[in-house]
Amino acid sequence: MFQNSCLSVSPDAPDASGLGALRVGLIGTGVVGSGTCQVLTRNAELIAQRAGRSIRLVMATARNLHKAAQVVGSDVDLVSDPWVLVRHPSIDVVVEVMGGVGLAKELVLEAIAQGKHVVTANKALLAEHGAEIFAAADARGVVVAYEAAVAVSIPIIKALREGLAANRIQEVVGIVNGTSNFILSKMQDEGLDFAAALRQATALGYAEADPSFDVEGIDAAHKTALLAANAFGADVPFGQVHAQGISALDPWDMLCAQALGYRIKLLGIARQGADAIEVRVHPTLVPQAHLLAQVQGSMNGIWVNTDAAGPTFHYGAGAGSQTTASAVVADLIDVARCGDAGDAVRAALRVPHRSVQASAVRRWPVQPIGQVASRHYLRFEWANYPALQAEWPSWLQAHGVEVQDMVRVPHMDQPQRKSWVALTSRVRGDDLSNALASLSHRTGGLTAAAIYRVEDLA
Amino acid sequence: MFQNSCLSVSPDAPDASGLGALRVGLIGTGVVGSGTCQVLTRNAELIAQRAGRSIRLVMATARNLHKAAQVVGSDVDLVSDPWVLVRHPSIDVVVEVMGGVGLAKELVLEAIAQGKHVVTANKALLAEHGAEIFAAADARGVVVAYEAAVAVSIPIIKALREGLAANRIQEVVGIVNGTSNFILSKMQDEGLDFAAALRQATALGYAEADPSFDVEGIDAAHKTALLAANAFGADVPFGQVHAQGISALDPWDMLCAQALGYRIKLLGIARQGADAIEVRVHPTLVPQAHLLAQVQGSMNGIWVNTDAAGPTFHYGAGAGSQTTASAVVADLIDVARCGDAGDAVRAALRVPHRSVQASAVRRWPVQPIGQVASRHYLRFEWANYPALQAEWPSWLQAHGVEVQDMVRVPHMDQPQRKSWVALTSRVRGDDLSNALASLSHRTGGLTAAAIYRVEDLA
Repeated sequence: MFQNSCLSVSPDAPDASGLGALRVGLIGTGVVGSGTCQVLTRNAELIAQRAGRSIRLVMATARNLHKAAQVVGSDVDLVSDPWVLVRHPSIDVVVEVMGGVGLAKELVLEAIAQGKHVVTANKALLAEHGAEIFAAADARGVVVAYEAAVAVSIPIIKALREGLAANRIQEVVGIVNGTSNFILSKMQDEGLDFAAALRQATALGYAEADPSFDVEGIDAAHKTALLAANAFGADVPFGQVHAQGISALDPWDMLCAQALGYRIKLLGIARQGADAIEVRVHPTLVPQAHLLAQVQGSMNGIWVNTDAAGPTFHYGAGAGSQTTASAVVADLIDVARCGDAGDAVRAALRVPHRSVQASAVRRWPVQPIGQVASRHYLRFEWANYPALQAEWPSWLQAHGVEVQDMVRVPHMDQPQRKSWVALTSRVRGDDLSNALASLSHRTGGLTAAAIYRVEDLA
Repeated sequence: MFQNSCLSVSPDAPDASGLGALRVGLIGTGVVGSGTCQVLTRNAELIAQRAGRSIRLVMATARNLHKAAQVVGSDVDLVSDPWVLVRHPSIDVVVEVMGGVGLAKELVLEAIAQGKHVVTANKALLAEHGAEIFAAADARGVVVAYEAAVAVSIPIIKALREGLAANRIQEVVGIVNGTSNFILSKMQDEGLDFAAALRQATALGYAEADPSFDVEGIDAAHKTALLAANAFGADVPFGQVHAQGISALDPWDMLCAQALGYRIKLLGIARQGADAIEVRVHPTLVPQAHLLAQVQGSMNGIWVNTDAAGPTFHYGAGAGSQTTASAVVADLIDVARCGDAGDAVRAALRVPHRSVQASAVRRWPVQPIGQVASRHYLRFEWANYPALQAEWPSWLQAHGVEVQDMVRVPHMDQPQRKSWVALTSRVRGDDLSNALASLSHRTGGLTAAAIYRVEDLA
């Protein structure tokens, strides 16, 4: 049936450790599960050469066992009950790629309780229940690995936790939702409105049947919370993370932003402050020349700023079957090196779940979005208030908001209509709201037609 | 004296492992050594929280002990004889940042023989003597870590060996010499010739007193050989690596390349073929829209293509004091986790020196540059051979070289003079040389004024 069925690896695969193969149980044989199976099979010999022992899929479970059999092939035990898998003595590590935060959470916790390592791609689960899951894993001496939860082709969790481990990480700013970035690229390049761009994304398989997690910024918020946890050694209270998506974005603002030298991207922003951290997702203006502005289509890109290494940038695909499998299998290789639940010294020397020893993880409060200061983009529609154009900047300035760049953008199809777009000085969201409320009061109703934050990432 | 002297860390730093601090001996207290000292001191607590134990500089050696004392502070033992350091029983790991391939090699081999791990930034040493050094380390059960040898702020060795370990890595293409890229950026943006741009690089401290290693492509070749070793699990015979620098590059060709939609960058290219690998460094045309073309000034960028994850891109600074220290200290944190020379099982599970178990490392032949096929950029100076312009493409085609894009570029300052630039189809270097020799013979001396390879990186 399937060419790439997960045959067991050749018996002469390297096993320099004498530990034998790492035995994997797979929960979920859909897009990610089948990709994992293909990569484990195709690159079995190379993976064993890298890991020092074989990595072998021995058991799988899925809702549709007939389909699952086609994916995993005849050498893998199929079980209909996932509880059997997570409790089975012949499994060393459980790969959870079923998704969701209900049953998946119970199964992951049971696998941990059984002394099994876990590899998961489940960003929602870890962003919302990470503290509980990591505590259980630490207590039981096992690892929960989740490189596949964020920007799958980019080893960004490893970069933050290991590659840049000498650094105090100051900020992580990323395009981490490929669906949204695909839609924004279509809006930018072809002038489509959101609904039309979303239809294209759906037709091409980039968007789910229910795209709200992607386009409303929830998925990006999950990922940004995980990036923040690793960047700052933080227990991030996910309920405090601000998420604003792209469904209300007018493509006209993308053109106006361009006139100011910017592009609008859906950014996940994690930044370390003195008393709190910023963790937020929203459409954001970034300078056209910045690498983040070059991330097109469904690709992901992550900008990291640090005290010693300076800025680094990490780019690659953020979704896909074998693309995600690349991260799942990399985690399996790490797990193959890390010993079992019984080895306390080695457990203490493993890479910690949130970049620092559990005792050092700090529950940083997340700064409320209204208290976060940044430059802002404002658009006013001019036809209605022609007399005010000379005056509104000074009125805003009277409320502490300086207008720094201002451009008048004529509408191509309605020459009499003009948009007036401006960038403000750094101002807290609440203070800007107050200043705009005063402006509206003073003018009898002048309001900004669009307000977005700006990240200059200097 | 120095604010950031390497004080010993606070005694209450986390030590979850019970192993005590990792004790570091430092050879060389220059730019990289002092940066390492500063990072180890400033981020001591964070580093211990990440590593699970403290990392403590206990001994240092340098040619100028007075200067060294200012760098390392009073709590670190200074010794004048580096042989004392590499043999000292109180040292767990030796950091070699003295450079060179003579004494440095002897000291590294002695440290290994003494059962000590080694962290080094020495790309020349490992590119030229890696096979010998890694074999010694494997035999003695210790690690030689060298993230700092390539593109220091970017954890690219870790990405190739661990983050992308599930993949068959097909190509690695990088801008890995910041000095050359700074000079090329100046030539591109300001129209400077090579000599003037080099003077600026020297004045700003980007170029050494003897810049030949940087501008002749030797440094980039060292780094590219190390990238190839890790991408392909290869023992790369460095003598076979082709290195061509930028000192002969005419800025006029950068403008002509631009007219074709390309930029010229000094690329290190490593690519897996069926029977051989390509490992080569030369000025190369890359499409203007490609991320590699966006790498400006002294920054580095590395493009990696893989079978499962697809393409990824990794960007950051390639030199500097604390920038390099970021990689040195990340390696120390890895070493802190990896156990000592006596632990055979753990040694077998460590990340191998060239990405695969030593028994699987293959001595791939490097394809001679003349046998490597690629598209080529050709420039002809037209004033001398006006009658030939219609005919030379057909003459080249008769020798198997198809001319695909052709642009006539007028010289701004000499309107009567014109350059004719073209891109060829894929052709082996030797075949192009033969075709051009025939063309020259046929025309009584028409030769290409410039020939560069093109990488479309599709």
